[in-house]
Amino acid sequence: MNHKNAIIESQQRISKYIHKTPVLTSQGINTICEATLFFKCENFQKMGAFKMRGATNAILQLTEEQRSRGVVTHSSGNFAQALALAAKSLGVTAYIVMPENAPQVKKDAVLGYGGKITECASTIEAREIASAKMVKEIGATFVHPSNDMDVIYGNATACLELLQEQPDLEMVIAPVGGGGLLAGTALTTHYFGNNGLAIGGEPSAVNDAFRSLQSGKIETNLHTNTIADGLRTHLGDLNFPILKKYVHEIICVEEQAILEAMQLIYQRLKIVVEPSSAVALAVVLNNKESFKNKHIGILLSGGNVDLQKLPF
Amino acid sequence: MNHKNAIIESQQRISKYIHKTPVLTSQGINTICEATLFFKCENFQKMGAFKMRGATNAILQLTEEQRSRGVVTHSSGNFAQALALAAKSLGVTAYIVMPENAPQVKKDAVLGYGGKITECASTIEAREIASAKMVKEIGATFVHPSNDMDVIYGNATACLELLQEQPDLEMVIAPVGGGGLLAGTALTTHYFGNNGLAIGGEPSAVNDAFRSLQSGKIETNLHTNTIADGLRTHLGDLNFPILKKYVHEIICVEEQAILEAMQLIYQRLKIVVEPSSAVALAVVLNNKESFKNKHIGILLSGGNVDLQKLPF
Repeated sequence: MNHKNAIIESQQRISKYIHKTPVLTSQGINTICEATLFFKCENFQKMGAFKMRGATNAILQLTEEQRSRGVVTHSSGNFAQALALAAKSLGVTAYIVMPENAPQVKKDAVLGYGGKITECASTIEAREIASAKMVKEIGATFVHPSNDMDVIYGNATACLELLQEQPDLEMVIAPVGGGGLLAGTALTTHYFGNNGLAIGGEPSAVNDAFRSLQSGKIETNLHTNTIADGLRTHLGDLNFPILKKYVHEIICVEEQAILEAMQLIYQRLKIVVEPSSAVALAVVLNNKESFKNKHIGILLSGGNVDLQKLPF
Repeated sequence: MNHKNAIIESQQRISKYIHKTPVLTSQGINTICEATLFFKCENFQKMGAFKMRGATNAILQLTEEQRSRGVVTHSSGNFAQALALAAKSLGVTAYIVMPENAPQVKKDAVLGYGGKITECASTIEAREIASAKMVKEIGATFVHPSNDMDVIYGNATACLELLQEQPDLEMVIAPVGGGGLLAGTALTTHYFGNNGLAIGGEPSAVNDAFRSLQSGKIETNLHTNTIADGLRTHLGDLNFPILKKYVHEIICVEEQAILEAMQLIYQRLKIVVEPSSAVALAVVLNNKESFKNKHIGILLSGGNVDLQKLPF
């Protein structure tokens, strides 16, 4: 299957299970940026993030027999909730491996969507061992949050909807964490755009993807001190080659710029987004000369933020 | 002119100067309320509040000669910004009388929209004297924020758009402060609804409208200690008779309920609203039995909130 057809088929496959999210604009933000920005609002997606697209697509690709044995993932973030809700909508059991120190609010969200939680120690190894155990013992299918082609194709449909509404975008900027959204965005921009460029936005504090494109191999982060908690993970062997081939550039932004962009989105667009969502706008705000007078798509990844911990 | 035609003509008159705002729903909020709620999102209106509708309508009703001499109002809230922006869009000068102790951020917003500020002492009398002086000396036309029939008809178009999208609402709930939004909502529900009821939501702390309907005369508030800062004013002689005739009921809610409703809107609808906007949802949350299984319109009045002072 080529990428182009896979993305079209993914859109058809998942359309009745997800929201077609709105594209918002703000005259005020355009004036500040001296450019024309189109915000694809995945904060309005079911369960509050684009992850619902990839999770739904991955489960729909399973056989009846696979579905009967359930799906498993390890995540303490949006993908845990997405897989739980997507599975519930499709009558499938979702087993979610979460670190035992994950915030109760995140565990409650997964439980609220009907997910079955297995707790493990708070290390990547422990997560992987626990997931592998579920796969072996229960026969559940493992779905990776970002390094899975069906997840990537599902994620790609966010940018596809955006381009269907605004075909002539000169660039689309998506945040990059695990690489699943940026890979989908880059494929879609390449196959469905009108010579548009795909650009990644990444916090400087966790600039593993930026360094990976420089070094040519998957880099990791020594620390994860960023407010953009959805972007702390690193790339995978399936999405990295896509990024290498189809992403024009990854641009890094400092924490203060992310915070200011987040505040601007709340003030001007009047919507609630999580810090990771603000990274793409921060890229534009920090590089006004490069983006001047351009028509730019901005992927807002989600809106699941702890209101008690807003940074302003 | 009868009310019905006046509202239809107002919609035609202002349509190209305002946003047609979206109507949002949330499965999560419906589950919590055990009812079906449709949120009319005036937080997405130009300048961030429904006030843009009434201000635009009032200016468009002026003669060329009147427009050439400008408009004046006294307000430190959304109406000041609305009149300034509406005037600017129509090439009219807006003189805004504001108390000298109004927050700089509000003055800046008015200045940003091109309004000319006159400062006065922080009393109702001082405001009225300053406004009257502008009318007398400059010949500007005074536009009251809520007690003006063209403002009321303009405001009414928010509910009209809602009913055009959801004709069979059993009730529409709007917050009540000065009475301009609720009066417009009540007229529209009466003339364009399908036997739907108009209900006012009011903070218990400033329940002047509730008491006015009981006593039959315009009551005022002894203090204005509510988080819903847009609802501290009292009714006027033009909107009060409309409320008496067309409003089914005004229901009061405590501060804690407003705060919880506001938080729910941020969490579930993923939108930024000001505290006044949360009052209508608080009414439903506090009276679940009365609203069970109903189809309810909720008017979210605006989204101009100081992010540094969010109550959560």
